[in-house]
Amino acid sequence: MEGKKVSESVTNMTELVLPNDTNTLNNLRGGKVLHWMDMAAAISAQKHSSSIVVTAGVDNVSFENPIKLGDVVTLKASVTRAFRTSMELIIEVWAEDVPSQTRYKSNEAYYTFVALDYRGNPKPVPPVIPESKAEKLRYEGALRRRELRLVLAGRMKPEDAVELKDIFIKS
Amino acid sequence: MEGKKVSESVTNMTELVLPNDTNTLNNLRGGKVLHWMDMAAAISAQKHSSSIVVTAGVDNVSFENPIKLGDVVTLKASVTRAFRTSMELIIEVWAEDVPSQTRYKSNEAYYTFVALDYRGNPKPVPPVIPESKAEKLRYEGALRRRELRLVLAGRMKPEDAVELKDIFIKS
Amino acid sequence: MEGKKVSESVTNMTELVLPNDTNTLNNLRGGKVLHWMDMAAAISAQKHSSSIVVTAGVDNVSFENPIKLGDVVTLKASVTRAFRTSMELIIEVWAEDVPSQTRYKSNEAYYTFVALDYRGNPKPVPPVIPESKAEKLRYEGALRRRELRLVLAGRMKPEDAVELKDIFIKS
Amino acid sequence: MEGKKVSESVTNMTELVLPNDTNTLNNLRGGKVLHWMDMAAAISAQKHSSSIVVTAGVDNVSFENPIKLGDVVTLKASVTRAFRTSMELIIEVWAEDVPSQTRYKSNEAYYTFVALDYRGNPKPVPPVIPESKAEKLRYEGALRRRELRLVLAGRMKPEDAVELKDIFIKS
Amino acid sequence: MEGKKVSESVTNMTELVLPNDTNTLNNLRGGKVLHWMDMAAAISAQKHSSSIVVTAGVDNVSFENPIKLGDVVTLKASVTRAFRTSMELIIEVWAEDVPSQTRYKSNEAYYTFVALDYRGNPKPVPPVIPESKAEKLRYEGALRRRELRLVLAGRMKPEDAVELKDIFIKS
Amino acid sequence: MEGKKVSESVTNMTELVLPNDTNTLNNLRGGKVLHWMDMAAAISAQKHSSSIVVTAGVDNVSFENPIKLGDVVTLKASVTRAFRTSMELIIEVWAEDVPSQTRYKSNEAYYTFVALDYRGNPKPVPPVIPESKAEKLRYEGALRRRELRLVLAGRMKPEDAVELKDIFIKS
Repeated sequence: MEGKKVSESVTNMTELVLPNDTNTLNNLRGGKVLHWMDMAAAISAQKHSSSIVVTAGVDNVSFENPIKLGDVVTLKASVTRAFRTSMELIIEVWAEDVPSQTRYKSNEAYYTFVALDYRGNPKPVPPVIPESKAEKLRYEGALRRRELRLVLAGRMKPEDAVELKDIFIKS
Repeated sequence: MEGKKVSESVTNMTELVLPNDTNTLNNLRGGKVLHWMDMAAAISAQKHSSSIVVTAGVDNVSFENPIKLGDVVTLKASVTRAFRTSMELIIEVWAEDVPSQTRYKSNEAYYTFVALDYRGNPKPVPPVIPESKAEKLRYEGALRRRELRLVLAGRMKPEDAVELKDIFIKS
Repeated sequence: MEGKKVSESVTNMTELVLPNDTNTLNNLRGGKVLHWMDMAAAISAQKHSSSIVVTAGVDNVSFENPIKLGDVVTLKASVTRAFRTSMELIIEVWAEDVPSQTRYKSNEAYYTFVALDYRGNPKPVPPVIPESKAEKLRYEGALRRRELRLVLAGRMKPEDAVELKDIFIKS
Repeated sequence: MEGKKVSESVTNMTELVLPNDTNTLNNLRGGKVLHWMDMAAAISAQKHSSSIVVTAGVDNVSFENPIKLGDVVTLKASVTRAFRTSMELIIEVWAEDVPSQTRYKSNEAYYTFVALDYRGNPKPVPPVIPESKAEKLRYEGALRRRELRLVLAGRMKPEDAVELKDIFIKS
Repeated sequence: MEGKKVSESVTNMTELVLPNDTNTLNNLRGGKVLHWMDMAAAISAQKHSSSIVVTAGVDNVSFENPIKLGDVVTLKASVTRAFRTSMELIIEVWAEDVPSQTRYKSNEAYYTFVALDYRGNPKPVPPVIPESKAEKLRYEGALRRRELRLVLAGRMKPEDAVELKDIFIKS
Repeated sequence: MEGKKVSESVTNMTELVLPNDTNTLNNLRGGKVLHWMDMAAAISAQKHSSSIVVTAGVDNVSFENPIKLGDVVTLKASVTRAFRTSMELIIEVWAEDVPSQTRYKSNEAYYTFVALDYRGNPKPVPPVIPESKAEKLRYEGALRRRELRLVLAGRMKPEDAVELKDIFIKS
C-alpha cells in the first residue's frame, strides 16, 4: 500500500462558542472541545484512509486557559502515524477573542482511529510519510505513546514497553 | 473543611443514541461519548464542591465496543478524590440494546475539574470520604494518576513521580 | 407472559438547563420538561417491554415552581402497571440549584406507551409486579386514571367509569 | 382591562419531522409534539397578554395516529379564556405526508400559561372575547376544565367542582 | 397537468429567536433567517408539486432591521410561478417584539426549487394559477427575475435577457 | 485607517452533513449551506474589522450539484473589498465524498456585513489590500456587484448604475 503525506489529511475547522456550550461563568465546556476535536480528527482520518473510521481512543488532554463565550475556536487535525488498521492523529486547538485580536493555544491531544470497511471490519490503512521536522518528531513519538496507551489499558505489561523506558525507567 | 462521602455526588445520566451522533455505519461517535461524560462529571463535581466547576483535563480513554444507533447509554459519575481546588472523577459508561436486552460496559475514564468562585478564581473543595472497597481503591490510585498527568503534561519530572514507580520503575 | 418488577425498568436521567431552553426570565420552558419526561418514560417502557414503544398519551401535568437556567434536572421514570399492549409510567422530576444545594420536587406525571413489534403493530407486554407500598398504590390507582383518560378522550361514558365513582360520584 | 379577540392571538407553526426526533420505527416522539405545542401556545399567550409567560400546566393529551419521518406538522394555538393572571389555550396539531397529500388531525390539547411582569410576578391579563361558535363553546368549557385541573392537582374538593357535575355526577 | 392556486401552497412558520442563534449584540444571525426561509419555501414547494424538492438558488436578500433575541419571527412562503420542473417562491419575513407589540417587516426574498422523483431526477410541476393582484404581479415579474438569475450565473447572455430590458436597457 | 491584506481574514470551515440537515433523498438542504456560509463569512468579517458584525445581505446563490449525507463540506471565506462601514466577502464551498475521494466545487456567493461598535452603531472598517490576481479581480468587481444590490433593493436608479453599464447597457 502506497504511503500518503501528512499534508494530504490536514483538516481545518472553525467553530464559534455559543451560549449552550458554556457554563454559568461563560466558559466553554471541555466536553464540547473534545467533541469538536473528535470531529476534526475523524474527517482527517477519513481522508488519510479513504474509508469510514471510528474513534478507538483519546490520550490525556489538559485544558490550560478557559475559552470564553463568543470566541472563535480553530482546530487543525492531521495524521501522525499509521499502524496496520489504526491511525494516530494530533489535534491542535487555538481560541481567539476576535475583536481584541487575542489568540492563544488552548490545548492539543492525540486521538486514535480505526479504519473500517463497509461491513464494519477493520481494514488496512496507508503508511504516513512525514516531511517536516515537526511531522518527523511526532511520527517517532507515536510508538512511545502507543505503548503508554497499551500499558494504561492493561493490554501491555510495563516491562514490555520498550519505548517508554526512555521516560520512566532511565530516570 | 468537612469531608463529603462519594455517594453524595453520584450522578446518573441516561442518553439515547440519535442519528446525528452516529457515523455512516450507525456507530456513535467517540466525541459524543466524551461530551456526555464531561456533562455527567461536571454535575457530579458541582455537587461535591457546591460551586461552579471547569474541566481541567481528561485521562486516556479507550473505546472497545461500538455503540449503535438507538442504543441507550447510561453514565455514572462520582468523585474519587479531591486535591486542594481540584477533583478527580470517574465516569463509567454502559450501553444497552434494550429490545434484545444486551447490556455491556462501554468504557470508563477519569476527568479532573477545578472548582471556581463567582469571579472565576479557584476555590478549595471538601475532601472525599471513600467508603466501599472500590471507592478506597480509586481514592488511593488517584495520586498515581495525578503524577502521570503531571509527567505527561511536562509539569513533573519522571524521577519525581514517586507513586508511578510501582508501575514503571520496579518492572 | 412472566411479570417483571418495577425496579427492573427504573430509568434515571439528569439534564442541565441550557440557555436555548429558557424564556426571557431564564425559566425553563414547560415543553422541554415534557420532552425530557417523554424520553425517560420511553426508555423505561422499552426496558419493561423489551420492544420499541410509542407515546399514547400524557395525563394532566401542572408545574408549580419555575426551574432556572443552570439548574440540574433529575428525572426518574418507572412502569406502574401494564395493560395488554400498553403501559402506564410515572415520571418524577426534581430540580436543583447545585451551588446553593437547593433541591425541590418540580412535578410528576403519568405517561402511557404502547409496545410495538418491528412492523409497527401493538404487541403484548409483561405484567408489572409492584413490591413497595408506593408501587402498590400506584398500581391500584392505574385503573382509575385509565378510566379518566378514556372518559376525557370521549371513548368511555362517565357512567361506565366504575373506578372513578370513588372520586366524583360519591362526593 | 379591555378584552381581546381570540383571532388576535392565533399562532400558526409549521415543523418538519427530522431524524433526531423519531424512534427506530421512524415515528415522531410524543415528547417532541408536546414541546412544539408548548412553543406555539407560549407565543400565542404572549400575544394575548403582551407579556412574558410561563407554562402552568397541560391537560390530558392522547396521540391517535403516528406521525412519520419527513411529514410536515402544522400547529395552531389560540387563547380560549383568561382568568385573572392565567390563560387557557387550545393547540390543534395536524400532520401531512405532503407528496401523497395525506393530511390528518393528529391531536389537540389545552395548555395553561401564567403572565409575568419583568420581575417574574404574575400580572393580570385581558379578558378573551370569543366570536365564532367554536370559540364560544371553548370559552364555556374552560371553567369545567379548570375545575378538573384543580381536582386532579388536589387543590379543589370534587364536591366543590360545580361545573364538573354535568359530566360525572349527573351520570 | 392541471394548475394549482397560489393559496394551496401557502406555508406559515413561526420561530422564536433563541440565544444560540444570535451574536454578541443579541441580534439574530442572517444565516439563521436564510435557513428558516429555505425550510418554509421547501415545504411550500413540496405542497405545490406533491413531490420531494431541492433548493436550486436564492435571489439577492438584504436585511434592513436587526431582529432581537426573544423576538417572534413569522415567515410566509408561497409559490409565485412554475417553470417546467422548477418553481419560484416568495418568502416574506416579519419580526415582532411581542411584549411591546412592535411588529415590522424584516425582509423578503425569492427562492427557486426543483421537484424530484424518488430516484432524484427532475419531474414536471403543475402551473401556478395567480388570483389576487399581488399574485399576478409576482407571476409576471418571475420571468424577469429568472433572466437575471441566468445572466448572473453566466448561463444567459445579457443581450438575450429580453425581459430585463425594461429595467436596464431602456434607462 | 491602515489597510489589511485579504489573507489576514481568510477563514476555513469544515462541516459534516448530518441526517437532520438532509431531505428525504439524503440531499443537504440549501438553507443549511447558506447558514454555514453566513457563519464563515461573519468570522472572516470579524477578523478584518476587529469588531462585531451583522449580515446586511446575500447576493444571488445557485446550487448546481446536490451534496449528500455523510459528505464533508469545506468553506473558505475572505473579504474582497471594504466600503465605509461595510465589507463584501466571498465564500466558496466544496463538498467531498471522502471514501471515494470525489471532491467538487458546490457553489460560491458574496455576503455583505456591517461592522458595529458595542452599542450597535456602524463603525468604519479598514480598507482591503488585494494581492493576488484573483483578489484584485474580486476587488474591482465589488463596485459593480454593489450597484446591482442597490438597484435590486430599489435604492439606486438603474441609469445611475455606472459600473453595471458594462454588462447590461452595452449589450
